[in-house]
Amino acid sequence: MTTAATRTEALLAARRGRLGPSLSVSYHDPLEIVRGEGQYLFDRAGERYLDCVNNVCHVGHCEPRVVAAGQRQLATLNTNTRYLHESILEYARRLTATLPAELSVCYFVNSGSEANELALRLARTHTGARDVVVLEHGYHGHTQALIDLGHYKFAGRGGQGAPETTHVVPLPDPYRGPHKGYEPATGAAYARHVETAWEQALAAGRRPAAFLAESISGCGGQVVFPAGFLAGAYTATRAVGGVCIADEVQVGCGRVGRAFWGFELQGVVPDIVTLGKPIGNGHPMAAVATTPEIAASFANGMEYFNTFGGNPVSCAIGLAVLDVIQEDGLQRHALAVGERFMRGLRDLGARHPLVGDVRGEGLFIGLELVRDRATLEPAAAAADELVETLRHRGILLSTDGPHHNVVKIKPPLVFTHENADEVVEALDDVLATL
Amino acid sequence: MTTAATRTEALLAARRGRLGPSLSVSYHDPLEIVRGEGQYLFDRAGERYLDCVNNVCHVGHCEPRVVAAGQRQLATLNTNTRYLHESILEYARRLTATLPAELSVCYFVNSGSEANELALRLARTHTGARDVVVLEHGYHGHTQALIDLGHYKFAGRGGQGAPETTHVVPLPDPYRGPHKGYEPATGAAYARHVETAWEQALAAGRRPAAFLAESISGCGGQVVFPAGFLAGAYTATRAVGGVCIADEVQVGCGRVGRAFWGFELQGVVPDIVTLGKPIGNGHPMAAVATTPEIAASFANGMEYFNTFGGNPVSCAIGLAVLDVIQEDGLQRHALAVGERFMRGLRDLGARHPLVGDVRGEGLFIGLELVRDRATLEPAAAAADELVETLRHRGILLSTDGPHHNVVKIKPPLVFTHENADEVVEALDDVLATL
Repeated sequence: MTTAATRTEALLAARRGRLGPSLSVSYHDPLEIVRGEGQYLFDRAGERYLDCVNNVCHVGHCEPRVVAAGQRQLATLNTNTRYLHESILEYARRLTATLPAELSVCYFVNSGSEANELALRLARTHTGARDVVVLEHGYHGHTQALIDLGHYKFAGRGGQGAPETTHVVPLPDPYRGPHKGYEPATGAAYARHVETAWEQALAAGRRPAAFLAESISGCGGQVVFPAGFLAGAYTATRAVGGVCIADEVQVGCGRVGRAFWGFELQGVVPDIVTLGKPIGNGHPMAAVATTPEIAASFANGMEYFNTFGGNPVSCAIGLAVLDVIQEDGLQRHALAVGERFMRGLRDLGARHPLVGDVRGEGLFIGLELVRDRATLEPAAAAADELVETLRHRGILLSTDGPHHNVVKIKPPLVFTHENADEVVEALDDVLATL
Repeated sequence: MTTAATRTEALLAARRGRLGPSLSVSYHDPLEIVRGEGQYLFDRAGERYLDCVNNVCHVGHCEPRVVAAGQRQLATLNTNTRYLHESILEYARRLTATLPAELSVCYFVNSGSEANELALRLARTHTGARDVVVLEHGYHGHTQALIDLGHYKFAGRGGQGAPETTHVVPLPDPYRGPHKGYEPATGAAYARHVETAWEQALAAGRRPAAFLAESISGCGGQVVFPAGFLAGAYTATRAVGGVCIADEVQVGCGRVGRAFWGFELQGVVPDIVTLGKPIGNGHPMAAVATTPEIAASFANGMEYFNTFGGNPVSCAIGLAVLDVIQEDGLQRHALAVGERFMRGLRDLGARHPLVGDVRGEGLFIGLELVRDRATLEPAAAAADELVETLRHRGILLSTDGPHHNVVKIKPPLVFTHENADEVVEALDDVLATL
């Protein structure tokens, strides 16, 4: 074995001994990443990798303005929200300014899971009900209550099925789902499943609390919804007294290009929005925004205190992330680069029959590989081989979706036109060999 | 109004508009804290406050070595655990070195709530059962599953009671509980309640998953358990097939002086330990340690991935906190200062009939105020007034416990002998006026 291989083996052996075995590593030949800069990661040997999947380090790895803001505040004060501090108020003001006016109240937490947990508690306290309609293949976090709402989890390996309070409707997948295409009629057809789910729940004596969905499905395979789906689902949910939660943990904050938040693409205003991964560029922070009415219902005497949530370091970092997105026009940039990227990927379809579908919004892109364009037989092995091969060419990608055949593309927003071309070219080479 | 009062009003008004109203502020006249250093906080006007309650900024506010470690890593790399990185392995090695040998496997998360959630999932997956015995007045976090286990929450304001899977036993409170004193006979008497709870649960057809308790009760009123309580509770739980979880989120990491972890004071080895607040000195991080057997049961095919957990910045900060505790001998220091502090507080009892009880371990101290030493009638109003008065003398304290009459003392571990004397002196003055 080479020295590098020996070292990898030693690190893997240490992980096996010291870390829970429920945690997997990327790639058959794992990477030891020691440094990050912009859209690039560097391994111990100094090799550079183009990061096409890290949707957490949203404005670029170690973005200097974000780093400086965090460093400054770390050295000044890091305490809790029982004292007054300007930064949490300024951050709440800036965040809510990006949201519809109705969503004027913020809660600050430490992770997407904590945000979705709180959203669920807000919805259940406000409605006095417990039942939730969710999408097939959805993932909303790793706490027990969220596993009970995540079809990807409770119906997947090691899962124990859904509790009676969870109602699953088909993922509105225009490519592979029961209704095809992006037209409003398709959106309405999928929304009718939500309506039916509530009808059946009510008939069974259940009481509606919420409809919970990502605005674009991540674990479902980077699935962009047909027009009008969320509007129809929201109408059906509100008609029975439920509230609507948009999970923007993976989707939001400028990535989708045409809008700052994913739900805007569907022309809806949620009652509760959860924000996570990208807002802190890697710093453990997340948030929930909701209406004053729901916030008032939640203030029922039980306090909600979050030890770390909204601390001055997190707020300083969150503000810097918003500044960078605005100063550098990253939302517009994501739109332009994403469109060029998707054009390039679609062109590959002419030469490579494996390319089944290319879809996305801005820099939230899925490339679905199939063995047969008529039957849509998933090409999971090819997707896996493609990801492994590109890793050895210095390009980091991963797969997603229930059939593991969707190549996921969600790079830091500083990704350039040239980066997109480079990936398309590399894919062209590799697809020819699969 | 003075300018300062106007500003406070403006900040409070902004909070009312922008932050969820379920979040309260410390003090009738809230503080705008802008800087921290060691055991001191500073307000906007430059006034210095001695922090006697922040158990999160464990080794001191803005401890320079911890700040430097965080700053360095922020600028280098902050990504997830799907890549190999030395720091998570080194941190796991260092953390487990402080724990009994059985607890050799770590999971890294972002908050005490996430840690207790994971502990619960580990226990339930390992045992295939759901029921948990918990202590009265316990608090373990803000997720739904943890509210269902937190008597402080589900039986408190806005609470909806316990689900059938939660069984509450009396808090082993040597001062105010049904059995008095710290002797092993008292500990055994309280442990018998755990035994009885399991007997009743089994008789009702329930199946034991876990016994969950803080090693010293925080929300219960800084209550140190009588000798042998945890040993008896653990024996009773293991006899029926349950596992034992020690919640060290508030207690552990050197604070209690005589040991590094609170459970050691009771001579037990838990099956799962949750670590939180102090380990990151304010940085949002937490951890769970368990046995290889429980970790193996949990690896049932469902992955546990935590986006931010175990990232290189958190690990660098966690390592620096452990370094500072060791280099500066803070555990020994906490023991010495805590003992002097408690001696001083007990001496106050001779002059001030309000002093009902002084208890603690190291720098985890409770001062319980009573109207009557025979009936133990709680003196909540006096405790509140005392805290408010001392705030205006530059000393930050707070109250805790079901009767809100326990003054909580959990300062950063850099707290000095002189600081302890200063607080005792101030208390002497103020107690005389109540």
